[in-house]
Amino acid sequence: MQYSQMSNPELAAEFNELKKQYEELKAQNLKLDMSRGKPAGEQLDLTMNMLKEVIGVCDCKSESGLDCRNYGVLDGIPECKRLFAEMLEVDSDNIILGGTSSLTLMFDYITQCMLTGAGDKPWSQQGDIKFICNVPGYDRHFGICEYYGIKMINVPMLSDGPDVEKIAELVKDRSVKGMFCVPKYSNPTGVTYSDEKIRALAALKPAAKDFRVIWDNAYIVHDFLENPDKVLNIFEACKEFGTEDYFIEFTSTSKISFPGAGVSCLAASDKNIQMIKKRFNTQMIGHDKLNQLRHAKYFKNLDGIKAHMKKHAALIEPKFNVVIDTFEKELAGTGLASWTKPNGGYFISLDTQQCSAMRVGELCKSLGVVLTSVGATYPYGKDPEDKNIRIAPTFPSVTDIGRAAEVLCLCIKLATIEKMM
Amino acid sequence: MQYSQMSNPELAAEFNELKKQYEELKAQNLKLDMSRGKPAGEQLDLTMNMLKEVIGVCDCKSESGLDCRNYGVLDGIPECKRLFAEMLEVDSDNIILGGTSSLTLMFDYITQCMLTGAGDKPWSQQGDIKFICNVPGYDRHFGICEYYGIKMINVPMLSDGPDVEKIAELVKDRSVKGMFCVPKYSNPTGVTYSDEKIRALAALKPAAKDFRVIWDNAYIVHDFLENPDKVLNIFEACKEFGTEDYFIEFTSTSKISFPGAGVSCLAASDKNIQMIKKRFNTQMIGHDKLNQLRHAKYFKNLDGIKAHMKKHAALIEPKFNVVIDTFEKELAGTGLASWTKPNGGYFISLDTQQCSAMRVGELCKSLGVVLTSVGATYPYGKDPEDKNIRIAPTFPSVTDIGRAAEVLCLCIKLATIEKMM
Repeated sequence: MQYSQMSNPELAAEFNELKKQYEELKAQNLKLDMSRGKPAGEQLDLTMNMLKEVIGVCDCKSESGLDCRNYGVLDGIPECKRLFAEMLEVDSDNIILGGTSSLTLMFDYITQCMLTGAGDKPWSQQGDIKFICNVPGYDRHFGICEYYGIKMINVPMLSDGPDVEKIAELVKDRSVKGMFCVPKYSNPTGVTYSDEKIRALAALKPAAKDFRVIWDNAYIVHDFLENPDKVLNIFEACKEFGTEDYFIEFTSTSKISFPGAGVSCLAASDKNIQMIKKRFNTQMIGHDKLNQLRHAKYFKNLDGIKAHMKKHAALIEPKFNVVIDTFEKELAGTGLASWTKPNGGYFISLDTQQCSAMRVGELCKSLGVVLTSVGATYPYGKDPEDKNIRIAPTFPSVTDIGRAAEVLCLCIKLATIEKMM
Repeated sequence: MQYSQMSNPELAAEFNELKKQYEELKAQNLKLDMSRGKPAGEQLDLTMNMLKEVIGVCDCKSESGLDCRNYGVLDGIPECKRLFAEMLEVDSDNIILGGTSSLTLMFDYITQCMLTGAGDKPWSQQGDIKFICNVPGYDRHFGICEYYGIKMINVPMLSDGPDVEKIAELVKDRSVKGMFCVPKYSNPTGVTYSDEKIRALAALKPAAKDFRVIWDNAYIVHDFLENPDKVLNIFEACKEFGTEDYFIEFTSTSKISFPGAGVSCLAASDKNIQMIKKRFNTQMIGHDKLNQLRHAKYFKNLDGIKAHMKKHAALIEPKFNVVIDTFEKELAGTGLASWTKPNGGYFISLDTQQCSAMRVGELCKSLGVVLTSVGATYPYGKDPEDKNIRIAPTFPSVTDIGRAAEVLCLCIKLATIEKMM
């Protein structure tokens, strides 16, 4: 029976029963963490052989003949650029490799727009500027805007991508300079943008000619299924509209090889590549080419990466399943919450009833279960409806994540009844 | 006999003799490169065993217990921070590790000053700003200023450091925001700053309270001698004057381990570290921790680095010697040129007579010997006296560098006589 259909005495009885379960769990002194989109140790073990590559003198040469140990090459060695080019379905010439973290490539790109512009005056000299943020979304994206004082405008994520109609209205404002998108297995909803949505984004006619979309394809090969979600190549979609300068794509091997020692990458139009390379010429001598060589030698090509990602999926999918199974068992049909069932990526997004998520977070914490800070999936850390919870199931063991999901369900029930009583 | 004392017929005879040598050399189709401050392959071979570190699962743990393969730690793992702290004689808390290239740390720091300031308004909002550049100096430093439109003011390098009296005058101007210094084995002169100079720099009273010195200690352990040059710890020197916020120190392992896969580092006051970490929080997830672990495990401590640098010195010093011996033999007492004799580092600086260096560069090039672009050691690539040539002897073999030095001497003689005739 749904809580909304219960009489007061029925609710009170349910509350007492839940409270009893709560006290039992509390006595167990649990310590479970569902907060971090972090691979588990056994996922990292999958790539250990990569570290044995590049250990002999002759192994340190790129196919171009370059000694990767020495200076040279700003945008990455050819075999590693090719690996990413195949993954992103772009030409190698439109690829630039970075260091470990694609977030740095994004931050540095926005910094460049702020200080030297994106074909118009520097953003920092254009008065108040704004970014569109699809919500719920990724807190690190929002953090860049907040750091630079770029005002953020929430646009809701729908089941097949962002609300493009709303976006099309917003970009009529010249001060709206850009947007963040995670087109595949979006953080945190797990939504993959439909072809229709991507075409509509490619067709946008922003008033600002220096409009830029941070197209963060972080989970491009992070599939669970034999027939995975497919995401339209944004640059292909742009061709029809001549809008390829508006999009800069990013990805990395953080969740393919090692979060602490991966290779990041951006893909962009010829014009944007040229502008970014101009900065690279002054900003650096080059990124870690031995690590690029390790990655290229170990994965070889996209097939190599795909085979590798199946091993990751075999470790991750059971963790997603145990969470979703627990939700189905405990919450299906109750009206207490809704959740996403992603076909890949690192997150499940759960919506409680309005004005409940903070309380659920508190209750979970009191039972030793840490969730991603409630609100973090919204700009400025403020979820206007206080309902979204990001669940990161990858790091704990299957057993632990299952228990954590049970605790979460109990806390959702408790928080809801508390509010009703 | 000096050219200036020769009669016209004597000069003509000398010219003909030199021209004959020139034609003989031209027929040899030489291809020699003295342009790049780049370690030779056999120097890189010295560190190959480092790449074999960090290959077992248990080896990927930092002493802090952190799995270096995974996310976590913005400023670097403790054992690698300690390694740099010992090298720079500062507390580990005042160290932040970067990626492969210290130039990036410098660029990013200046970018931060431009966009969010160094305790005052952002530099980019303070109208025209200026930097002091000690000349001859490092073109990559000048490149950062040029990229951001920061006006550069030349101050001559003397035999024991920059002309601090001139600097003390210049910093009375509030728009002078900073300065580049390479305090040990300076690029390209090889000069090490005397204690007196460093104390005078520490005692500067700039009008701009957001004045910042890029203290690029790139060659801090790159000694040739048993009793190497010692450079005063800048932060110790600052204590007396309370000026530690004016200095940010940088270094890297580029010329210790691998230019293409090293670890960079900055050291700064508590206040500056805090401001830089604030940016790091938004800019990145972390730098390559496995590479930090490799470096820490392989070198262990400063003694380990010093022992390693002796092996580098054994390979480099003979190359410096052959160049300087050739200069002594061919040019000593002629008045045609003067040159530095550094006790370490990567460069020799040679001054021809005025208005000759460009022509020397052309003549060398016509004989297949590539020098660093003449002028590159000055801001905007313009050597006002057209006399400075930076010689980078490390990359070619001893034999090749000896021949290149002979070619250079011949071209200096030719260029001078051409001008006199």
